[in-house]
Amino acid sequence: MKKYNVNFLPEETIIEIEEGTTILEAAQKASVNINCLCGGNGVCGKCRVQVKDNKIRAGKSEISFLSKEEIEAGYALACQAVISRDLEVVIPPESRLDSEQILMEDVAMDFSQPEIHTVPKLASDPLSLFDPLARKLYLKLDEPTAEDNVSDVERIIVELKKQTDFRYFEPALSALQTMGQVIREADWKVTATIIKYDNIWKIAMIEAGDTSRESYGTAIDIGTTTIVAQLINMKTGKVIGISGSHNPQAGYGADVISRMIYACNRDNGLNQLHGAVVKTVNSLIKNLTDKNNIRPDQVTTVMTAGNTTMTHLLLAMSPCNIRMSPYVPAASIFPPVLAKDLGVAVHPEGVLHAIPCIASYVGGDIVAGIIACGISDKPEMNLLIDVGTNGEIALGNNEYLVCCSASAGPAFEGGGIQNGMRATRGAIERVSIEDGELEYQTIDNAKPRGICGSGLIDCIYEFARSGIINKDGKFDQARRNRRLIEKDGKPEFIVAYAEDTETGADLTISEPDISNIIRSKGAVFAAIKSLLDYIGVRPEEIDTFYVAGGFGTYLNIPKAIGIGLLPDIDPARIKFIGNSSLIGARMALLSEYASDRARKIANSATNIELSTYQPFMDEYIAAMFLPHTDRNLFPSVNY
Amino acid sequence: MKKYNVNFLPEETIIEIEEGTTILEAAQKASVNINCLCGGNGVCGKCRVQVKDNKIRAGKSEISFLSKEEIEAGYALACQAVISRDLEVVIPPESRLDSEQILMEDVAMDFSQPEIHTVPKLASDPLSLFDPLARKLYLKLDEPTAEDNVSDVERIIVELKKQTDFRYFEPALSALQTMGQVIREADWKVTATIIKYDNIWKIAMIEAGDTSRESYGTAIDIGTTTIVAQLINMKTGKVIGISGSHNPQAGYGADVISRMIYACNRDNGLNQLHGAVVKTVNSLIKNLTDKNNIRPDQVTTVMTAGNTTMTHLLLAMSPCNIRMSPYVPAASIFPPVLAKDLGVAVHPEGVLHAIPCIASYVGGDIVAGIIACGISDKPEMNLLIDVGTNGEIALGNNEYLVCCSASAGPAFEGGGIQNGMRATRGAIERVSIEDGELEYQTIDNAKPRGICGSGLIDCIYEFARSGIINKDGKFDQARRNRRLIEKDGKPEFIVAYAEDTETGADLTISEPDISNIIRSKGAVFAAIKSLLDYIGVRPEEIDTFYVAGGFGTYLNIPKAIGIGLLPDIDPARIKFIGNSSLIGARMALLSEYASDRARKIANSATNIELSTYQPFMDEYIAAMFLPHTDRNLFPSVNY
Repeated sequence: MKKYNVNFLPEETIIEIEEGTTILEAAQKASVNINCLCGGNGVCGKCRVQVKDNKIRAGKSEISFLSKEEIEAGYALACQAVISRDLEVVIPPESRLDSEQILMEDVAMDFSQPEIHTVPKLASDPLSLFDPLARKLYLKLDEPTAEDNVSDVERIIVELKKQTDFRYFEPALSALQTMGQVIREADWKVTATIIKYDNIWKIAMIEAGDTSRESYGTAIDIGTTTIVAQLINMKTGKVIGISGSHNPQAGYGADVISRMIYACNRDNGLNQLHGAVVKTVNSLIKNLTDKNNIRPDQVTTVMTAGNTTMTHLLLAMSPCNIRMSPYVPAASIFPPVLAKDLGVAVHPEGVLHAIPCIASYVGGDIVAGIIACGISDKPEMNLLIDVGTNGEIALGNNEYLVCCSASAGPAFEGGGIQNGMRATRGAIERVSIEDGELEYQTIDNAKPRGICGSGLIDCIYEFARSGIINKDGKFDQARRNRRLIEKDGKPEFIVAYAEDTETGADLTISEPDISNIIRSKGAVFAAIKSLLDYIGVRPEEIDTFYVAGGFGTYLNIPKAIGIGLLPDIDPARIKFIGNSSLIGARMALLSEYASDRARKIANSATNIELSTYQPFMDEYIAAMFLPHTDRNLFPSVNY
Repeated sequence: MKKYNVNFLPEETIIEIEEGTTILEAAQKASVNINCLCGGNGVCGKCRVQVKDNKIRAGKSEISFLSKEEIEAGYALACQAVISRDLEVVIPPESRLDSEQILMEDVAMDFSQPEIHTVPKLASDPLSLFDPLARKLYLKLDEPTAEDNVSDVERIIVELKKQTDFRYFEPALSALQTMGQVIREADWKVTATIIKYDNIWKIAMIEAGDTSRESYGTAIDIGTTTIVAQLINMKTGKVIGISGSHNPQAGYGADVISRMIYACNRDNGLNQLHGAVVKTVNSLIKNLTDKNNIRPDQVTTVMTAGNTTMTHLLLAMSPCNIRMSPYVPAASIFPPVLAKDLGVAVHPEGVLHAIPCIASYVGGDIVAGIIACGISDKPEMNLLIDVGTNGEIALGNNEYLVCCSASAGPAFEGGGIQNGMRATRGAIERVSIEDGELEYQTIDNAKPRGICGSGLIDCIYEFARSGIINKDGKFDQARRNRRLIEKDGKPEFIVAYAEDTETGADLTISEPDISNIIRSKGAVFAAIKSLLDYIGVRPEEIDTFYVAGGFGTYLNIPKAIGIGLLPDIDPARIKFIGNSSLIGARMALLSEYASDRARKIANSATNIELSTYQPFMDEYIAAMFLPHTDRNLFPSVNY
């Protein structure tokens, strides 16, 4: 097999690959991130790259995504272009996955100064009780005598029982095999590491002397797009570091569906996806421990939260039946597993817990979010919504909980939108039209590269309010606007002119783009409405409307209400909770109560399967207008 | 490093070894069994071998064990003779460890016809309830629908709960990773393997179709001298095969003390001993499964019973603190472990349980024996005694249990006795003197090679009864007997004349031999007496006096009473229970009740540490006569 070198520019990352590899595969190998929404199937057109000296030929499927000029300039789709010689490949800004915009921060907490934040300890709030799932206890043991010659491990257990309220301890084999020598060399002063494992506390390790402060755990949000890990001192509950990364599985497909297809239809596909996430988890943990001068093997517990598919892939469980009706996961409640059995490099007896899921499309990230918001521990009615490709919603109180997942489509993440992009550097995130003048703001004030979800919502709202589009989302061609142009005989609205953009092309919005956004907002609103109706509460009866995830961060609430995405409630009752999946994972790591609660939520929440729920269908149709067919639902919206 | 070939005769087992290896080490490598009581330290003189053509030189330490003629004939001690050329080595009969006499049979059961025996099921006897620790259940699952789309594992658990009384199930990661495909390919008809693991049932495997009859476990007695394994059908409780072997650790020392010394004083000593027992366990399991046309990975549970040191070595736990006061084991109750973590080759999720121990010298073999005899489940007072190098004794009923271990010394196993040997082929096992005529019987009616424990007891009894020795064990030189000779100025009694023996030398008994036996029987009797007095019962109040192990098999009860080894009770109340360690292990494997009972026994039995117990010291001194200083204790003995 011939081998070639590919040099990715501008960073000059060079990798040797075998003949026949695609540029996308080469980039994945080289850890160069390329946007790849469709999973490398040549159907999203997002992975455009420019091959220097035009050394590659565009294939048939690429022609529909690339202009003649672009093809002549060496542009190709990375997923389609097969390498048959040495190449230099430029990845243009719009095809990059940037790492700056990973939602690492909890909105409520500022981690710029680690070591000062901890889980609040409120006696009135059992979720916040500090009862971590791994502990280190310093034990001064009595030396055995002829009258008291119980076994070493029994001596340790007696002391552990004195220091804790726990009844069941069991030594790990590796601890048993070494403890005799350790405790004698340490003159009977040792530190025991105990890790919760089902209903017992496993004695994972006996160390000489007092190392009880060196007790670490990690909470990890395994998102479809990003993975974020926190390193936590389990003795104090303090977060001592946070690190995030793109989920490298994105190279195999942007959303859970395309990843499931990859896992199930390719040889070894599941292992590739599993390996990719484990590799990233390991590098995040290594990164965090290195920075804090500790070793990864000092991390004894890992708590992950992810949606059902992400959790299946992390545990190397087949997600294949999640995808197809009747949407059955292999498991929704996961046993604690030895981290090493997954290849996660922490303590050899370290335990990995995955927050349980409610259903195939209401995962552990939502359960963690419910924990983070305390929904199931408060008498008031609260709602949590996490919008990505799916809009996952949980609604309830300490008595009951219903949830659902609406297929919102990728529009809010920039998918299916001509100039859509994720909320990363250069994305237009805010748009306003005042007195006919359009103004926009980009992330990091960079040159515009595209429009992200919040920018798209703003656009639709501003278009509707200004009469640029009418209530079914069509341009009002009667109304003249210099930004409203025709392209291939179809109307498009220029948000940013070519001379201002990074790409040098106009950033426009078309009617199909608007339709996509309306379908997405309609699905989310219909899901919210269906849940409210199912329980029989009105929007104004909701105490707090929590918006989780990256979507919320840039969202302009009144405009989101204005297009009929969110119900028309007092914006003051809408709260961004940030990365609630990560917050909930940390709470479960630090609190047995929260960890048990997660299991109870997964067991008891009612999931409404919207795809077969007629009231949702009706609501969906009714929500396909701006703001809604039933204007009475949006009294505050006055366009 | 130069290499040489050693050819062990007569079997012609040739092995290549490095220069500087001892003949004993070469034999161990070649799996040729050589008797080695002292662990290769050159102090027992039992490992005599003959090097052909006198190619080896006897060292200083060997001269005390070998006559000038023997040295000239090429005799050497295998543990001392260092190889520096190619050799042919003859292992004489008396230095062989034969495999014929492994106590495999339960006295109460005849395994010559496997598949017909099972644990008796008596409603009145909870120990015999059939509640095996691993089960296979055939499940006909309902196919999921939109209304019933719980996860695969939840569907399985619901069905398992229907078929059993158990509440807690947890899937093994490996089962989770594969079950989705298996159940669909099998059209929702599958067999679940569940294995008890602490308080949960672990779902170890999901197989297509109905394989519920193919459920296997093994019970293994890990004896210091022998290892015996039974293959058991866990569905029926039937024993389908039994296989035994010498414990290859014997090559590193005959008794637990010398093995502990080896494990603790040699580099890698623990691993060698651990590896040796695991290798044998694996070969026994392989042997059993091969014979029955099943695979070792169909064995899902292994239940072992061994003394505290054997169990530590099996689990690769350091036994070093067992040996020295205050005799502290690393653990006495052992967690269930994954068999693969020990290198035991059964099902990848297979669990190995070790019967817990009471103390450093009252091990899991005794706990298993207590289970086998049902001592802790009966209101009557019963006593169990297992005599090897140590005499371990348990006494009690369903209310309390006391036990102890007396250092009996190796005399009953032939150690420390000039012509002593284990109870293997050619051992003189019975001796009687009638009208001055001595008659003996050997095991397998082979030519005599030595005298085993039961033969020695018979001798002492017959000598005492015939007045050949007096009550302190000295020969009555006034009484003439043609068998009473002088050797190096000291009296010896010829049991078998040179012309009749395998070795061609007289088999004699000396005064030091008799002293050794008296010390041994004194220690055992004093231990029994101490326990009885501790509880305050008289010998005649004991319902049944169980004698376990190989020692009992050849024992003549009246003669054992006659020398003051056993208390003077009605011989009808003395029962040989056979390999009670194996019986108890099987019961624990097949009954959760028995398995729980073992843990309770280990937790609650009172161990009396005889080495610091003054009443025992006094009893020991008093027992150093034949039959005893206090003749009133032995009214039936009339010499």
